[in-house]
Order: sequence, then structure tokens, then C-alpha cells
Amino acid sequence: MRLIILEGPISRAAIAKRIGLSIPSVMTITENLIGRGLVQTVGKGKSSGGKPPELLSVVPDSEYYMGVDIGRSAIRLVILNLAQKVIFGTRIETGAVQPEEAFVNRLCTLIQSSLAEAELDVSRLAGVGVAMPGLIEGETGHVLFSPDFGWSDIPLQNWLQRKLPYPVVVENANRALALAEGKWKGAGACLGDGTGSGSRTVLCVNMGHGIGAALLQDDLLYLGSSGTSGEIGHITVCKDGPLCACGNSGCLEAVASGEAIALQGRDAVASGLPTLMSELCGGAREKIDAKLVFDAAKQGDLAALSIVDRATDYIGIALAMAINILDPDSIVLCGGLTKNGPIFFDKVCESTKKRRMRQAGRHVDICLGKLGDYGTAVGAAHVISYNGWRIPKLEHYY
Amino acid sequence: MRLIILEGPISRAAIAKRIGLSIPSVMTITENLIGRGLVQTVGKGKSSGGKPPELLSVVPDSEYYMGVDIGRSAIRLVILNLAQKVIFGTRIETGAVQPEEAFVNRLCTLIQSSLAEAELDVSRLAGVGVAMPGLIEGETGHVLFSPDFGWSDIPLQNWLQRKLPYPVVVENANRALALAEGKWKGAGACLGDGTGSGSRTVLCVNMGHGIGAALLQDDLLYLGSSGTSGEIGHITVCKDGPLCACGNSGCLEAVASGEAIALQGRDAVASGLPTLMSELCGGAREKIDAKLVFDAAKQGDLAALSIVDRATDYIGIALAMAINILDPDSIVLCGGLTKNGPIFFDKVCESTKKRRMRQAGRHVDICLGKLGDYGTAVGAAHVISYNGWRIPKLEHYY
Repeated sequence: MRLIILEGPISRAAIAKRIGLSIPSVMTITENLIGRGLVQTVGKGKSSGGKPPELLSVVPDSEYYMGVDIGRSAIRLVILNLAQKVIFGTRIETGAVQPEEAFVNRLCTLIQSSLAEAELDVSRLAGVGVAMPGLIEGETGHVLFSPDFGWSDIPLQNWLQRKLPYPVVVENANRALALAEGKWKGAGACLGDGTGSGSRTVLCVNMGHGIGAALLQDDLLYLGSSGTSGEIGHITVCKDGPLCACGNSGCLEAVASGEAIALQGRDAVASGLPTLMSELCGGAREKIDAKLVFDAAKQGDLAALSIVDRATDYIGIALAMAINILDPDSIVLCGGLTKNGPIFFDKVCESTKKRRMRQAGRHVDICLGKLGDYGTAVGAAHVISYNGWRIPKLEHYY
Repeated sequence: MRLIILEGPISRAAIAKRIGLSIPSVMTITENLIGRGLVQTVGKGKSSGGKPPELLSVVPDSEYYMGVDIGRSAIRLVILNLAQKVIFGTRIETGAVQPEEAFVNRLCTLIQSSLAEAELDVSRLAGVGVAMPGLIEGETGHVLFSPDFGWSDIPLQNWLQRKLPYPVVVENANRALALAEGKWKGAGACLGDGTGSGSRTVLCVNMGHGIGAALLQDDLLYLGSSGTSGEIGHITVCKDGPLCACGNSGCLEAVASGEAIALQGRDAVASGLPTLMSELCGGAREKIDAKLVFDAAKQGDLAALSIVDRATDYIGIALAMAINILDPDSIVLCGGLTKNGPIFFDKVCESTKKRRMRQAGRHVDICLGKLGDYGTAVGAAHVISYNGWRIPKLEHYY
């Protein structure tokens, strides 16, 4: 399916050659997909001597996938068609944290009003993928612990499933984003071919309100023994550092996330330090966010620069840690903090280079994600599309 | 081979059943192994109705594998036979760091005198595996950087190969140890079956003079994009901490390795603090090693306890980091520090539990390695035995 989506129209022989299956195997699989109405024949290709080969292409509107990204500041919703094209997108403010059940009701209303607005054949909706920050149990979509929302032990997938007549899968937001950024070359991933041998490892780090990550190995999500891997935001980088929303202290997230940077900016202004941040916020300290701190730093404000230097140094320590331990092929940086331009990216790269072990990770490519604000929502839809095609390696998981 | 070694005598049908291959495939493979003189038939098994099946077993002395562990304090050498039984072992002091070429000459002398002493048929020696601390380039066995020895850019495998008439492979010491501790259930690994699904991830952490680690996934070494993964000793755990042998500051190794603990003990005595360590070393500060610090801590000495608490807290931070990011099935703790008994293990587990994210790594099993001082040397020999059997998945590597 992926090959047909990305490279179609394509002949069965070309598919067989590209993925190393026999032509009879490819014929069996493609007949199944044609029978399910997902793939169609679209004319003939060039003959290489014999009969011109039949070309296959997806039927774009044969199936739809909804992805919902529950972020601390916004909820984003997209609908993709089988060709993985975004055919509908919307965004609402998350607002103050509500009781869990009220929040779930609001989410269901958003999902159903979006379906109505998109005017598509709902019987073709393969399912709804929901991306949620925090520790999510693999097969059940149970929210074990979400520091961003203060939720513990919430059967979110189950609650949504009981209210919605489509399959629902709840997945960790960073994993959804990694699927979108890393897996779909056609969907904008910026990964080179790498010079390492063996399996390809991609670490996708999401730095916004909080900080999280996910690992892909050979395009498959790395799951871990209990489904809770990738929590780079909650490694201790500063033993006696500030309290984190997770309950520990000195976590990366507590010193370097968008929220932590904003808090440090507010503290600097409150302390009466002479800083441009006071002017930029017009005296309203609560309006200071990470972007404002970066804006002041870009104009050379020393207090803001000191906050930015400290945060990017800690992020570099965390990325250097990942390089020392995993020596990945690529690290893809995503999320709100990456929107602050070269001042962020260059300082992070500089700190990473300084903090990693000399000669470690010689082939690691550090790059920016390309999908922007809707990456996680698109990834949430991918969680469903992979389920729908029943890729055997993922079957044990979904 | 592994199945025949661990469970032989075993019938072809039992092999086929256990590893999911067809009986004709198993016959082809076992005929090859019999033809190479590695496997023999050893009588008949119980009939389950038809002809009683032929049983296969390894020919223990058909092949030998030498493993050499170059440690900062000792060099250990073992010879294994095909049945993976240690048939020879020896140990010499490493002594002061010598010029690289002189060191290589000394190593070759040790290897050849050991072969003479072991009195085995040298034509059956499949090769010599050399385990070296530091960053080792995968296919070339080139020492990129070894902080313990102060070596940079030394073509160790090449130099040894030019002097020795047997195949030589140089590998990172922690990877060798992980092969021995994690891979060979029969060789003493203590891993349970785990309750996670999907691929099994085992992190083997070696804490002695320095600190390093290696990852196994489904019994295969995780290599990384440039072959330099596993360097847990050189993650920054203390941003402005003490200088490390690698050139950075605040590395785990600089605050929590055997060497770092010994240095802190010597400093405490030098500072004139009232501490039992002064008596235990009999006034000779340079005699203080990590064991002495732990011995004083076990007797309630406050200065020693403070050093031990700090070191184990940092080790816990590093293990919690590994759990947050990788959520492995098992973490196997090995090396000299683990010999200090419950005071070490309990404090490390306590800190790990405190520092990991709540609900992360619910199924992680933390346990002690079982192979003792010769584990790395045995693993170095395994590096050769795997090469000898040409397991396809490893072929790209060796």
C-alpha cells in the first residue's frame, strides 16, 4: 500500500522488484486490495518487450482516516484520504483543563461536527486516531499518566469507543508525530539515506509545551517492554533542579520546555531585572511565553539570552545522551520551540556537539521536522491507516 | 548451532519444531555442520511411532575460540571450545599504560604463550576476539577513542592481525560482555521471560574502572549508525561536574565509576575529614579504591556513605534515563562495583525507582550479571564463535 500510495501508478512487476516479493505474491496481495476497493487499475505502462503491464493506483476516496492531536494549548483534527492527503483540518483552543469526562464529551462533539462539516461518506471512515501526551498503554489506549493534563489512570480509548461508532485508537502523541515525520518519505520527512549499516534508527523529539520523543527502527515504532518508551522530557538533567509536572525534580521538561522557558521569563520580569521582556509583554507578565523570551533574546536581551542558553544547553545534554546511547541515524526536532529559528537550532546543535562523547555518533544527522503544527494530528491518522492495512509486524500491537 | 549446543543431543525434528524451519531446511543445515566436523550423530532418540530419530550433538573440541578482555586493571584471557565451555583461563595485571605498540607486542606474547600452555590443536582455533574499552569502529576494529587507555585512532585489529596467524576481531568490551550475559541463556544470563510483547531489549551496564553499556535486541547486538552506541558512562549527569577522562565534564563516569569513587575517597581523607577510610588505608591514601570506600560505608562511616549515596544516585539517574527512553525488558548490572553487595544494588534500585517517570518501565527487570570477572573475556570469545557459524543477520557486521 505504501509503495502504491507513494509511487503509483506502478506495475505489479515494479512492486515485486522494489519490495523483493515474487510476482505471484504481489498478485495475491494486489487482488485482495482491488477486491476491497482500495486499489484500482489505471491503464497500461510501457512495454519492455512483451505485453504492456497494467498500472495500479490507490482509490483516493475509498477510505478516510481521522487524526486528533490533543495538545495542552490546542486540539487539532485532520481527515486524510487513502492517498494520505489532508482533506479536512480544524483547530480549537484547549482552554483550561476540564474534568476528564467533560473533556471527552467535548472531544466527541468536535469529532462529529468535523465529520458533518467535511461532508464525506462516513461509512468509509476507517477509524479515529487520538494522539495524547503522556504514558499511554499500548494495546488498550489507557492513559496511565499525563503530566500535561494531570490525568492518571483514564481509560480514554474505552470511553471514546463507547461514544463513537468508528474504531478508535489512542496513542502517545510523540509516537504519532514520529510516524508522520519519519515514516512517510512522501509526507515530508527530511531524512537522508544515512551512512550507517544495519537497521535505521530515527529519534523524533517533540519540544513544545512539554518535551517527548519516539523512536523508529526500520520505519517501525519502537515500543519497549511496557509501551512507555521515549520519555526524554522526564530524564533528570539537573539533580536538584526545579519541580516538574510529573512529580520529580530536575527533569529536562522542567528546565527546557516551552512552559519552563515561559516561567523563567516571567520570573525574570517579576524579579525586577532590567529586561526587554518587561516591555514586550506590556507589563502583563502572564502573557510571556517561550516565543516572547526567544524574541527578546534575538534582540540581544541578556536576561532572555541567559534563559535561552540554559534551556538549549540542557536540550543539547539530552540529545548528546541519546547519541551516546543510541547512535541513531537521524534526530528530527519538532514542536513549537523549533519555530524560533536559527537561535534555537544552532544553540541546540552546538551544545549537543559539545556534550556528546568525542567520536560518538559520527553519522548522526540532526534536522528539523517538516510537517509543522499538524504533524501530530496527521500521525494520529496514520496510526489508523496502518491498522487498516494490517501490516503483519504491527498486528501484535494494534 | 546454539540450539544443538544448549539442548543437544537433539533430533532434527525437534530442531525444526523449536526454530520454525522445515525439516528439509534443517537437514540441509545440519548436513553442512556435520560435513564441517562441528556436529556429530550420537545414537537414536525415542521413537514416536516410526523410525527412532537420529540425535545430534556438537563435537566439543572441533573448534576453539579465544577471548581477551583488556581492562584497565587486568587483562584476562580465556579459551572456549565449541560447546562454549571455558577450557583455559589466565589473568595478568595491566600495569601502567605503555606506548601502544609495546602494549600490542605484550598482548601477542600473552596470546601465544597461552596457546602453548593450553596444549590444544592450534589449527582448530577459529580466531581471537579482543574486547577493548572505548569507541571501536565496527567492521575494522579500529580504536577511535579509549579514554581508559588514552588511545586515539589506533588500528588495533589491523596491528594484531599482522602479528597473529589467526583471525582477529576487536570489539567494544561492553558489547562483548552483553553477548555473554544476555545472549547465552546457558552461559548464566539471569533474564526472565519478561512480560512485554514484541522484540526483547536488554541493556547490559558494566560498572568498574569506567562505566559503559550495550544493548541487545532479540539477542542481537544493537550497533547504531556508526557503531558507537552504549556510551552511558559519558552522558552528562551533572552539568558543571568534575572533568572526565573523555575530555567533557560531569559525565556519569566522572562522578560514579570505581575510579571516581576511589578519587572521592582519597580526597575525603586528604581533606582531614574524620573518616574510617583513613584507618582502612593505613595512611596510604593511594591504596584507597572503590571497594575500600564501600567497606567503610558498610560500617556506617558518614564520609564514605555520602560518596556512595552520591554515586548510586547518579547511577540511578542514568538507569532511570534508560528506562524512560528505552523501556527495556531487562537491565543487567555487571562489573566491579556490583561486587559491593546489597548496599550498592539496593541504593541503585532505590534511586532508579525514584528518578524514573512514574508508571514508566513497569515491566523492567533489574538484575545482576552472573558471569563474574571473566564475563567480558567469554563474550570476546563469543564474538568469534558467532562469526564462525556465519549467522546471516550478523554477516553484514563482522
